[in-house]
Amino acid sequence: MQTRYDIAIVGSGPAGLSAALNAKIRNKSFIIFGSKNLSSKLQKAPKVNNYLGFYGVSGEELKDKFLSHIEGMQIKIQEERINNIYAMGEYFALMVNEKIYEAKTVILSTGVEYTKALEGEEEFLGKGVGYCATCDAPLYKDKVVSIIAYNKEGEKDASYVSELAKSVYYIPMYRGEYNINDRVTIIEDKPIKILGNEKVEKLVLKGKELETEGIFLLKDSISPKQLVPGLKITDGHVDVDRSMKTNIKGCFAAGDCTGKPYQYIKAAGEGNIASLSAVEYLDSLK
Amino acid sequence: MQTRYDIAIVGSGPAGLSAALNAKIRNKSFIIFGSKNLSSKLQKAPKVNNYLGFYGVSGEELKDKFLSHIEGMQIKIQEERINNIYAMGEYFALMVNEKIYEAKTVILSTGVEYTKALEGEEEFLGKGVGYCATCDAPLYKDKVVSIIAYNKEGEKDASYVSELAKSVYYIPMYRGEYNINDRVTIIEDKPIKILGNEKVEKLVLKGKELETEGIFLLKDSISPKQLVPGLKITDGHVDVDRSMKTNIKGCFAAGDCTGKPYQYIKAAGEGNIASLSAVEYLDSLK
Repeated sequence: MQTRYDIAIVGSGPAGLSAALNAKIRNKSFIIFGSKNLSSKLQKAPKVNNYLGFYGVSGEELKDKFLSHIEGMQIKIQEERINNIYAMGEYFALMVNEKIYEAKTVILSTGVEYTKALEGEEEFLGKGVGYCATCDAPLYKDKVVSIIAYNKEGEKDASYVSELAKSVYYIPMYRGEYNINDRVTIIEDKPIKILGNEKVEKLVLKGKELETEGIFLLKDSISPKQLVPGLKITDGHVDVDRSMKTNIKGCFAAGDCTGKPYQYIKAAGEGNIASLSAVEYLDSLK
Repeated sequence: MQTRYDIAIVGSGPAGLSAALNAKIRNKSFIIFGSKNLSSKLQKAPKVNNYLGFYGVSGEELKDKFLSHIEGMQIKIQEERINNIYAMGEYFALMVNEKIYEAKTVILSTGVEYTKALEGEEEFLGKGVGYCATCDAPLYKDKVVSIIAYNKEGEKDASYVSELAKSVYYIPMYRGEYNINDRVTIIEDKPIKILGNEKVEKLVLKGKELETEGIFLLKDSISPKQLVPGLKITDGHVDVDRSMKTNIKGCFAAGDCTGKPYQYIKAAGEGNIASLSAVEYLDSLK
């Protein structure tokens, strides 16, 4: 039987980690998705002076402090990228490639450093556009698929899709050697927009156009709007109240994705609130 | 000429300190009122596990971390207790006994551990009830004054008032030896309510009633409602929006005084937001 967690936390920056601490302390079952580097933004910060308690630390040092805190509390980060979150009524379904996780509540702590959407991307989402090549590949048997990949992990996905699809275009958005099979056509060009009628028909690049029936965008992170259908967004940020509730029952948000100021301590504070609000919500279900 | 600070921060718990860090970093002139013990609540906390970055620390250890952070940034705490804050339009006047401080913005971070108001206290505030004996003493020349003191510092005030007043009752709310002059009558009893018509007439104690024209309550901390006339309070907490603005222009609030959860990291996060909101407001005045 599928495990159904009390809380699923999406993102391992200060907001997500702070939420995890409180979920642990409050004895809830939870899973936190993210990266063992925690947050690329945090890692790159040169000097942080306004996280109360740490004077003159680098982002890297702060990251190590956070890591040793969660390790001390036996919190493990699940290194998987969520592609979609669906509110199913009683629970949420979190899609990770071919896997599905279930949780009664969700805390979004995705940050704001996500890739800007292409023109047409949102319009054709679910109509030929997807974020998970391996899970949707069967839909494109004997069809033409384009994969826009923001990191090297996309190469494995492209090779996999090429075994089913008629042909695969691979548009890498990063530099480097490509380790990919011969059935895949690598195209080094800049994607501009997605065209079609009911469904995707074309991917327009700066230098050429590709006739294609499916387009996968393999991003480092997906914006909450694309992640959670129906989530209320205002001015690019998740709408929350002071208790970090979103417009979807059982779905909370914390950190940069809820708006400025983009600050670590603000994010950590909000993660705390979101987690305790989720706990309160869970208790109200009993 | 009176110094007019950009920001006055009232309270030196995590919210106030976090606000101070950001005021300093953003190069604003500011003053932070509080205690070198920072926060009695923090100091008493046995074990804190959910302040991200510190695992298994005591409140005392966390206090030391906070202290060394603010010392590292040359932030000094002004050890004075604010009795009243008046919005003067262009600025705020913060009253400390006989002194007045001026600031363009105020951040309230008073916490929630304040002494419950007596029946009649709010009704007769300014009509015989006051929080600062030394500043209002001249109003009670040759009158009968009662002083309800929550700590030993009240003894000095009582001696001072006794030089002007006709007589002084001193009702200590703490235990210990009293070091007070002979002109003051010490009454060990529990205050129940304040009575009067236009002005204070009587202080009702559990065991007796005192005819009195003035009553001073010398508390460790004063609730925001009593501190700032006109401040909007809902369910005992300062009303704030997500940017930590109160209903009074230029007045912000952060930490426990804005509502639950009562958590250090939540308070610190809100202090950050309040401070940056104050900075933004100050910049808009230019």
